[in-house]
Amino acid sequence: MKLYDVAVSGNCYKVRLLAALADIPLELAPVDMRAGEHKHPEFLQRNPWGEVPVLQDGDMTLRDSQAILVYLAAKHGRSEWWPADPAAQAKIVGWLSVAANELQHGPATARRADRFGIALDKTEPLRRAGRILALLEAHLAGCDWLVGSRPTLAECAVMPYVALAPEGGIDLAPYPSVLAWIDRIRALPGFVPMPGIPA
Amino acid sequence: MKLYDVAVSGNCYKVRLLAALADIPLELAPVDMRAGEHKHPEFLQRNPWGEVPVLQDGDMTLRDSQAILVYLAAKHGRSEWWPADPAAQAKIVGWLSVAANELQHGPATARRADRFGIALDKTEPLRRAGRILALLEAHLAGCDWLVGSRPTLAECAVMPYVALAPEGGIDLAPYPSVLAWIDRIRALPGFVPMPGIPA
Repeated sequence: MKLYDVAVSGNCYKVRLLAALADIPLELAPVDMRAGEHKHPEFLQRNPWGEVPVLQDGDMTLRDSQAILVYLAAKHGRSEWWPADPAAQAKIVGWLSVAANELQHGPATARRADRFGIALDKTEPLRRAGRILALLEAHLAGCDWLVGSRPTLAECAVMPYVALAPEGGIDLAPYPSVLAWIDRIRALPGFVPMPGIPA
Repeated sequence: MKLYDVAVSGNCYKVRLLAALADIPLELAPVDMRAGEHKHPEFLQRNPWGEVPVLQDGDMTLRDSQAILVYLAAKHGRSEWWPADPAAQAKIVGWLSVAANELQHGPATARRADRFGIALDKTEPLRRAGRILALLEAHLAGCDWLVGSRPTLAECAVMPYVALAPEGGIDLAPYPSVLAWIDRIRALPGFVPMPGIPA
């Protein structure tokens, strides 16, 4: 399986993180985003959204980081990361929604402005970031992991743009349970870092 | 199972639509959003996000419309709506991300402004709506259903805020394949309407 990948993308890192933690082999195909490779016709044929990551598995092309997480875990039978139990699966999907909604339009957008110099108004992204970080802090004050008693796909989907929030000018100090949770993930066997999330 | 529900909410309608199409029994508990019931302490204990829908199944409380769709289909063994096949499941999750990301922050936000009089700048929501509707049109020009050869959870997650887009001032006429797809869903046995999406 080949992952079209950008090293500084939190969405690509979600996938690299799962592959590392769940011991799933993955070939990386770097995409030169600075050169606009993700908007070239060849790439748009692969993913009309013009976004990374994209997974290629034989004939099958898959867009969206959350979708790729589910595919890798399901295809490789990593049921500890993506359980068959309806309640666990649904609760994980709830966190995949948080990754696609509140985190993408909160801390990830604030980071796009500061880290990549995209001209945008940070007011709403910062408000959204404060709201979701407070909700996450309250949730993690009562448990070690987002769903159940061990890490799941929810950790891979949610952690990256939370841990990268300081690159968008967001201080994580008011969220000690969130910081402790990030450290728990960083201590997992097989953990891989990315720029902004050290080992 | 009890669904905390608001009749004019597209997110709640996703769940009512699946329940109707897949013949899943569901008790509705109306939430008085105008009276701010979703922000009352009792409701916030159920869902700290302060949002509908919320599903209550015995001891289990579940937030997020996408999560509830997965739970209902998985719990009731509706594998035609939520297949076990990794590729199908992952592609559906890709559309659940579209529902949580592009549609929520596109047409659903434009509708909040026009339909409910929420003061917000529609510029970005309208731009996002145009982009995702064009992508959806291109996708549906080549197939009857979002994933595979029959309707799945993807239809329940994606259709509502697309069909409600005109309530946000968005004309769907430039998207004939999208309109035909909405009509295919409206023609399914068991289909239920909502205000803005007639039978």
